Amino acid sequence: MKTEVAIARVRADVAALHAELVRYGLVVWTGGNVSARVPGADLFVIKPSGVSYDDLAPENMILCDLDGTVIEGTPGSDRSPSSDTAAHAYVYRNMPDVGGVVHTHSTYAVAWATRGEEIPCVITAMADEFGGPIPVGPFAIIGDDSIGRGIVETLTGHRSRAVLMQNHGPFTIGATAKDAVKAAVMLEDVARTVHVAAQGGPLIPIPQDAIDGLYARYQNVYGQATDDRR
Amino acid sequence: MKTEVAIARVRADVAALHAELVRYGLVVWTGGNVSARVPGADLFVIKPSGVSYDDLAPENMILCDLDGTVIEGTPGSDRSPSSDTAAHAYVYRNMPDVGGVVHTHSTYAVAWATRGEEIPCVITAMADEFGGPIPVGPFAIIGDDSIGRGIVETLTGHRSRAVLMQNHGPFTIGATAKDAVKAAVMLEDVARTVHVAAQGGPLIPIPQDAIDGLYARYQNVYGQATDDRR
Amino acid sequence: MKTEVAIARVRADVAALHAELVRYGLVVWTGGNVSARVPGADLFVIKPSGVSYDDLAPENMILCDLDGTVIEGTPGSDRSPSSDTAAHAYVYRNMPDVGGVVHTHSTYAVAWATRGEEIPCVITAMADEFGGPIPVGPFAIIGDDSIGRGIVETLTGHRSRAVLMQNHGPFTIGATAKDAVKAAVMLEDVARTVHVAAQGGPLIPIPQDAIDGLYARYQNVYGQATDDRR
Amino acid sequence: MKTEVAIARVRADVAALHAELVRYGLVVWTGGNVSARVPGADLFVIKPSGVSYDDLAPENMILCDLDGTVIEGTPGSDRSPSSDTAAHAYVYRNMPDVGGVVHTHSTYAVAWATRGEEIPCVITAMADEFGGPIPVGPFAIIGDDSIGRGIVETLTGHRSRAVLMQNHGPFTIGATAKDAVKAAVMLEDVARTVHVAAQGGPLIPIPQDAIDGLYARYQNVYGQATDDRR
Repeated sequence: MKTEVAIARVRADVAALHAELVRYGLVVWTGGNVSARVPGADLFVIKPSGVSYDDLAPENMILCDLDGTVIEGTPGSDRSPSSDTAAHAYVYRNMPDVGGVVHTHSTYAVAWATRGEEIPCVITAMADEFGGPIPVGPFAIIGDDSIGRGIVETLTGHRSRAVLMQNHGPFTIGATAKDAVKAAVMLEDVARTVHVAAQGGPLIPIPQDAIDGLYARYQNVYGQATDDRR
Repeated sequence: MKTEVAIARVRADVAALHAELVRYGLVVWTGGNVSARVPGADLFVIKPSGVSYDDLAPENMILCDLDGTVIEGTPGSDRSPSSDTAAHAYVYRNMPDVGGVVHTHSTYAVAWATRGEEIPCVITAMADEFGGPIPVGPFAIIGDDSIGRGIVETLTGHRSRAVLMQNHGPFTIGATAKDAVKAAVMLEDVARTVHVAAQGGPLIPIPQDAIDGLYARYQNVYGQATDDRR
Repeated sequence: MKTEVAIARVRADVAALHAELVRYGLVVWTGGNVSARVPGADLFVIKPSGVSYDDLAPENMILCDLDGTVIEGTPGSDRSPSSDTAAHAYVYRNMPDVGGVVHTHSTYAVAWATRGEEIPCVITAMADEFGGPIPVGPFAIIGDDSIGRGIVETLTGHRSRAVLMQNHGPFTIGATAKDAVKAAVMLEDVARTVHVAAQGGPLIPIPQDAIDGLYARYQNVYGQATDDRR
Repeated sequence: MKTEVAIARVRADVAALHAELVRYGLVVWTGGNVSARVPGADLFVIKPSGVSYDDLAPENMILCDLDGTVIEGTPGSDRSPSSDTAAHAYVYRNMPDVGGVVHTHSTYAVAWATRGEEIPCVITAMADEFGGPIPVGPFAIIGDDSIGRGIVETLTGHRSRAVLMQNHGPFTIGATAKDAVKAAVMLEDVARTVHVAAQGGPLIPIPQDAIDGLYARYQNVYGQATDDRR
């Protein structure tokens, strides 16, 4: 019963968080997806495949187990989940602290990914949020676990909760789905800003100890005491 | 009678789909146009010429035969159809599987067209959607069938349902008008992303077999079973 | 009495047309201004200086004579007119066919102006609308007639109804204020598109006879018979 | 009692002005902050830390003394103020004519800051508003007074009321918070325009006497007599 309540809340959260992807211009048409783990259960909720952002209601979200299999008989289970469901499931199976996963094709993040170039940490806000450069993950195509494995291998032990999958685009993770959405928003912001900056000439590096100090402070003291720290 | 119902539905679809061009920033002022074939009839519906996007209602859409001649006595027939009507008509006459045509002057697609440069397929989403590069069509000016012929000759036998007419801009086709609108939206998205990526340095190519695999999968399994596959 | 009606209509038009500058992102804060000649009178209506776009109502618009002097005792006459009023007035005095003038600091048009570089006519939509390149006007600063004179000298006998005043920004003219607003919108669109295109490599020129043909056709046959031809 | 009224008005102003940062695209997520000095008191009002722009109401704004200490028992005092509060406080303590301070991470301003490059004054609107180039402040990280000191040292005696803190982003000051917000909006506009202009080739300088003349005029005659001059 407790799980039912948790599922209902996660459905509502995931449906609502998709609107943030639209608000910040990270997605077009039906691209992009947000998922969230159901607290206290081996389940997650994800967006259906190929459905307009205008039609995303809690009851259309799809409940899956951690293998990415749709739970039959639940609301939305007559539809196919996002084609990226396998990648999300792989992350939840292998990164137990991750509560949310987001995937977009946001313009500037994809641009870096298409060059296979990590985004250097040259902005203090990036040091705050990501603690260093945004890493590039391997080229991997849909159809097996290679995308999920690429995400997990790149982000495990890395401060960044965003990875640029080569020639594909960004995946972000977070303690919650909202945190992963924030990472997707901030990632595109830094991807765009560092791109624009680099078009104009050489960038000034930030000393590593300053990056370390900013990251440590931001993880501990930013925001309200009652908020998720990120 | 069945045709009357079909025409009414197509008028409503075409009017509504123009809003997507505005939503995604593909058009300014009165530029751009969407048309749709009337199923089961040698007719199509298209936007009037030089009319504001705020004034596009179903009854203002214009019904034409496949020569691009306005059907007298039908709603909207007192107005001139889009100045690109001849090009749309040529496509419908020569590509029987095409149910919708879209033309815009979206910024990044026009930029590639102005250099006469095809957009290389370096993003997995582009492989999914277009199956390879976006081709360039010939320089052709309005006034005869040369634009229509350029579209048809470039896209016949090509996976891409988007063509960049040199120094002019993109035309997209689709099984339905919605599909052609989606192609116009995705085209501008990839045109912008690949432009931005290329500004930063060399792009990593995607192996041809990966492009082929992504395209085959996307045409067959993406989206909901009840949806248009695209 | 007839003039009173005309003034009222012009006030409403000018107030409403400012919203188009906002809609198309051509202005920020209180920058930019639209004016319109009162048909059949030596008068024009212009935006007040330094007033928010949220507060532009017909009764706030300011009525001036063709020297740019505010007509005392009319609505809005307790406020100062746009600081560009002298330039608008100069145009109305010296170009009798001009019914509307628009000035903005739209990003891409200003960028070309800051390099003193005309925008080459490499897009068919630009040939349609402007009939050739967008010319650059002289460097001139506010305070006397030098801005107005620069506009008039540059545009007299030129097909383009847009000029890029060096290091300053665009002024556009038209048969009506709506036509001048359209020119401002289309100008920024081509300024952006040609900028983006040129960032990617050499542009393909359009043959002069094709430019001439496109311009002639567009001035004569585009749009609805009942519409302003432009 | 008079102070209570002033505080209430400042709370409302500061809450409302944050919406301008969103409107002009200067901030994402919870980034950016506006503060305003309470007239006639050693107090200022600032945004809470890490709170969504959708949730900014007057009663959520936080009242601080000029050391940046939250005034206990006042509305909002149960929350943490912006993490940039110390920098704002330093400015109020050291620049008595400053009535408002704004900080954002707006894209183009941050881009110049990341190269440590001042923005040259090549646009007349920039001469009007800032009277010359936008200067760069030192690299300084959060945690002590070094950001505030960098702002004050850079802007004291400078015409510009905007500074680009290296690798960090812009801070703007003004006689009022609205004036500081206007400076933040105009700064991003010129940062973007000059960036775009410079991508296309060499920029034409504006002679120093023209810059001086434009700045003098704009500070004295622009806008309505009843308005803040800026």
